[in-house]
Formats: sequence, C-alpha cells, structure tokens
Amino acid sequence: MIPAETKAVATRGYATHNKEAKFEPFEFARREVGPNDVLIDIEYCGICHTDIHQARAEWEPMIPAIYPMVPGHEIVGRVTQVGDKVTKFKVGDAAGIGCFIDSCGECPACLSGNEQFCFKGCAMSYNGTEMDRTTRTYGGYSNKYVINEDYALKVNATGDLSGVAPLLCAGITTYAPLKKWGVGPGKKVAVAGLGGLGHMGVKIAAAMGAEVTVLSTSPSKEADARGLGATGFLNTRDEAAVKAATGSFDLILDTIAAMHDYNLYLSLLGLNGVMVVVGAPSEPIPLNAFSLIGGNKVIAGSMIGGIAETQEMLDFCVEHGVTSDVEVITPDRIEEAYDRTVKSDVRYRFVIDMK
Amino acid sequence: MIPAETKAVATRGYATHNKEAKFEPFEFARREVGPNDVLIDIEYCGICHTDIHQARAEWEPMIPAIYPMVPGHEIVGRVTQVGDKVTKFKVGDAAGIGCFIDSCGECPACLSGNEQFCFKGCAMSYNGTEMDRTTRTYGGYSNKYVINEDYALKVNATGDLSGVAPLLCAGITTYAPLKKWGVGPGKKVAVAGLGGLGHMGVKIAAAMGAEVTVLSTSPSKEADARGLGATGFLNTRDEAAVKAATGSFDLILDTIAAMHDYNLYLSLLGLNGVMVVVGAPSEPIPLNAFSLIGGNKVIAGSMIGGIAETQEMLDFCVEHGVTSDVEVITPDRIEEAYDRTVKSDVRYRFVIDMK
Repeated sequence: MIPAETKAVATRGYATHNKEAKFEPFEFARREVGPNDVLIDIEYCGICHTDIHQARAEWEPMIPAIYPMVPGHEIVGRVTQVGDKVTKFKVGDAAGIGCFIDSCGECPACLSGNEQFCFKGCAMSYNGTEMDRTTRTYGGYSNKYVINEDYALKVNATGDLSGVAPLLCAGITTYAPLKKWGVGPGKKVAVAGLGGLGHMGVKIAAAMGAEVTVLSTSPSKEADARGLGATGFLNTRDEAAVKAATGSFDLILDTIAAMHDYNLYLSLLGLNGVMVVVGAPSEPIPLNAFSLIGGNKVIAGSMIGGIAETQEMLDFCVEHGVTSDVEVITPDRIEEAYDRTVKSDVRYRFVIDMK
Repeated sequence: MIPAETKAVATRGYATHNKEAKFEPFEFARREVGPNDVLIDIEYCGICHTDIHQARAEWEPMIPAIYPMVPGHEIVGRVTQVGDKVTKFKVGDAAGIGCFIDSCGECPACLSGNEQFCFKGCAMSYNGTEMDRTTRTYGGYSNKYVINEDYALKVNATGDLSGVAPLLCAGITTYAPLKKWGVGPGKKVAVAGLGGLGHMGVKIAAAMGAEVTVLSTSPSKEADARGLGATGFLNTRDEAAVKAATGSFDLILDTIAAMHDYNLYLSLLGLNGVMVVVGAPSEPIPLNAFSLIGGNKVIAGSMIGGIAETQEMLDFCVEHGVTSDVEVITPDRIEEAYDRTVKSDVRYRFVIDMK
C-alpha cells in the first residue's frame, strides 16, 4: 500500500497560460499513485507539432485550449514507484507515455484495441481531463507522471532514451498505417514530407524491408533522406520527374500538414495503391473522384494507434535499432523550439531534457 | 475454318454523328470471326449514363468523342458462330459483353486480372479502337458483335435476358468493391444514391448477406429502396437523422454522380469504415483530412472489374436471382431514354431491345 502521506505527487512542469505560448515553471499535483498506477520520473519529452497547435489555440473551437497548459505526449522516463497491483512494471524500468492515458475499456473501440477512438473519448495526456471529465491532465513538459499501468508502455531499450521519446507519437503514427496496409519487402513506399513524422516513416518503412522514396518540395533534403534509409528522392515540383513516376508506388505515407494537391500524389500510386494521410492540412483539399476510380486507388486516414500496437511498435523499433533523430534542449528553450519547428528548422524532432 | 466469304460481319446499329446525340440507323462491318472469336447476336443492350456522357461529348477532352458513335457496353445475346479454336462457347449459348473487349494480356494489370487497367489501355467496347489502335469499335446499340472469347462472358441464366444486360457494367461496378472490402453477413452497408448503380448495389449487397441502408435526398424513394432489399433508409437532408446515424456503417457505396459532401458521408462510417466512390462528380470535392484521420477511415475508388471477376459476378447474380430492374425500349426511343436517365426518371435502367 501507498502510505497516505505520499498520496499527492508534487510535480514541476512548464506551462503556458495563454495562446501566446510563453512557458514558465508551473507546480501542480499529480493524483496519488493508486494500486494500478505507476509513477514515472520523466527523462525526455518530445515536442510534437500538435503541442504547438494546442498551446497556441490553433485548433479552436474543434479542440479547446485549456490553460494553464503543460503540453507533451512523447514521454519516456523511469518507473520510480508502483501500485500494489501493478504487474507489468517494476521500479527502475524504462517506460513511455503517449497521446492518451486512459479510456473506457468497454466500448467497441477499446475492446478492439483502438483505444485512441474510445467511444466515450479517451483521456488525453494533456489539454484534457481524466475519464471523470473533471480532473485536468498535464503533459510531459514536467518531471513526473502518474498513470495506470495498462496505458503505459514498456521501453525495452538500453542507454539514452532521448531518441525513443518521439516514437510515442511520431513513431506509432507512422508505424500503424505502414503495418495495416501491408508494407514489407517488395513494396514500394513513398513518404511525402520529411519532418518529424516523415523521418520516422522513412526509418520504419525501411526497417520493414520496403524500398523507400521521399517526396519533397525541398531538393536540399535528398542527402538527409538517403541517410535515413530512402533509396529514392522525388522533387514534387519537378513536373517531368513527377510524370515519369506515375504509377510507381504501392503506398504513399502523406505526412504533409500544409496544403498540397492530393490528386497529384494519387497519380504516383500504382493499381490498388494506398495513400495514407497522417498530416492534417487546415483547409479541405479538392479531391477528384477520377483520381481514385482510375486504378482502384485508396485514400486512408490514420491516427496514432492503440496501446497494444504502440507496444508492438516500440518493440519493433528496439529490435531494429530505430530511434528518432533528435535535438535535445533544456526547458528554457521551448519557445525557440516551437518557432523552429513551425519553420521546419529541426532534424527532426526537439526533445526536452526533463531530468 | 470460317469461309472467306463470311469474313466481314454486316451489322446494323444506331449511331449518333455529333454531340447533339440524335441517333439514326447506321450500317457497318464487324471484323471477320477469327479462330478465337465468337459472333454474338445481340438481344439487349443497357443504357449506361456513361453512354450519354460520351455520346454528348461531355467528358472531352479527357475522353474524346469519336463519331459516328454506336454506344453500348451492357450487352447480352446469343452466340451464333464460333471460331475454330473457341472452347468456352458453343452456338446457342447466352453471352455478355461489358465495357472492354480486349487488352494486352501481358502487363501487370492484365496478368493480375485487372484488365480494365491494362497498361497499354484496353480496347473499349465503343468510342475507342481495337488494340491495333486503328480499327474503330462500335458498341451494343447494334445487332451483332464479334469478340475474342476470352473477353466475352458466359451467361448461365435461363429465360429473358433483359435484366441481365445491366449487370455487365452496373453489376460489376458495384459487385467488385463490395467483394473487395469484405461485405457479407454482419456488415452494415449504406448505398448512397438510388439510380442505375445504386439499385444494383442494394440488390447485390443484400444478396451477400449485408444489412443495407439507402442514403438518398429523395424520401420518395424509401418504398423502392425497401422493395429492392434495403432494411433502412436515411434522408441525407435530414440533419437530425444524419447526426443520429454518425458512425453507423462499415461501408458506404457512393454511386452519386452529382456534387455532394464527402465529409458528411464519411461521418456516417464507423471505425476503419470504407467509402467506395463509383460515381464520378464532374468537379473535385473538398476533402477534410480530419474526416479520414478520425476513425482511420478510407475513401476508395473502384472502376468496373476484370474479366474473371465479371464472370464471378454474373455467376453470383444467377445463383442469387439478382437482375436489374429494367424498362425495355425500342431503338427509336433512345433520345427519350437519355433525357429521362439524366432526370433520374427510370426505375432503374433502360434496356434497348435489339432483337
């Protein structure tokens, strides 16, 4: 049993109090460590573009920004306390936390391993509430997290964990659709956009055995693309090259959040080809039905993944030595990192050292 | 061997000579019946909306209209002559011809049974050419067709064939995606639009064992929808009903050729739900990436089917007693049928009696 006096977990984090996104130290209490909970001392937390959208209230009114907001859902650390019913973790284990920390566990989505689509709405790791709908959640720009062990991930990696943190969002976001749509040896995969998501997509698709090409409007990224595991590079502003690549790919992983022409990318797919959209442009994109009908093509969406699949992804990445390329920063540089992330001036993910 | 004097097959059809689409009798010669060919005396030919688009040059410049044009690719009739190497047919057999009559037979599309996407471009049944790229093709608004037996379909039905003709296009167009995406018992299927394609979609999905709902803007179609095999009907202009149906369907077969909001229909899909687009609106439709990402949803295109799958569809329809609901007309009423088809004033397919 956890002694009563240790119930509330004093936590130090970095919060923004308005959409101008100036972060400052923020002290708050995590809930007591319950019998099924683990307490994780956070070592690293990645900066996801989603953090910026929410901290700056860019997704309102669809997703309200709740202040003070402590963002962060690419979290790795060490277990420092376990509830008395915990079986999956022991003190000292490396552990991860992703985009959500709880769900109803009873709806068709939860029962099918798609907790991210919980019919009751899962408890997001920050800018949300616990399933009680009243207790605020604060994210990983902080030094501790208390979470039900069922929603924490085991990290079987050794050594420095900074490159593991982004797997909890960018990793699963790219792994899940690559897996669902059958990427493996003999498949030709294109990754559109080489940012935080894209660079993980390249690494994971290559680790799955696919032949990977990067599609980008920045020819300067070709060397990096090849360094990450791509064997091809296509400048999508080069009309002749685009035309020559018509029908080339089995799957396109589209990580581009800016406006772009879906029909052009669909033309690059072969018969029964699939374009998976994981980047979310702010405005709708005109889709020509003929772009899909010719060649029986598919556009599919994909949003992170369930807990079991996230664990599968982490195990896959450890087995294949896949981590994110990161730039580790101290917490006083969050605003700078945000501004540089917006300008795509990072290779390829900022990670905050919370130790 | 075919005696030399019977080589060219004199044929009488109905052609339009310009995009005003006035049809008049037109005499032309089909090619000689070669060793692998069958000669089919056409009994019925369905009027597909595609005929109207091409006869009226509405798809130019994408698909040029070549005059004189004899449309028609929903063809059934009887074999009256066979080449000496023909094995699949004998004189007297019922046979069908669909949207294409030849392909290269060697490319990845042909070799995988997707002849409709032949890399060299298949030979369309009309408004196109044979694979030699010079010999014009004329369609089923005529009394005879000469075709390689490999591209003709066996029709194992007895009795009147008028309701079978539309299966060659409307049938395979709806059957192929329903099959590909796993429709069967326990699946909830919605068919959007109740026209020539939609009514076939309802019948085939119901025959596959699915629970079928029709989505339509015309409440007056509810009785018909139920008569065709639907157990549900949703008026998509009824906002409350649409909202109540959020997440209801595993698959939506979208047969609507008019502009409509893909995002609204996607909201009706459940987790991992699939919307198959077989209707082709003339303008691109704005697609919100969030409509796909939330729920890992899919939009897929589908275009008719290959020869083996078309045969499978015909056999399925005969086994389950599925035919098209047709209004049989004489050839002098083609223009009237066109005008009424454009106004959706037909339940559900015009078929020309060519006997």
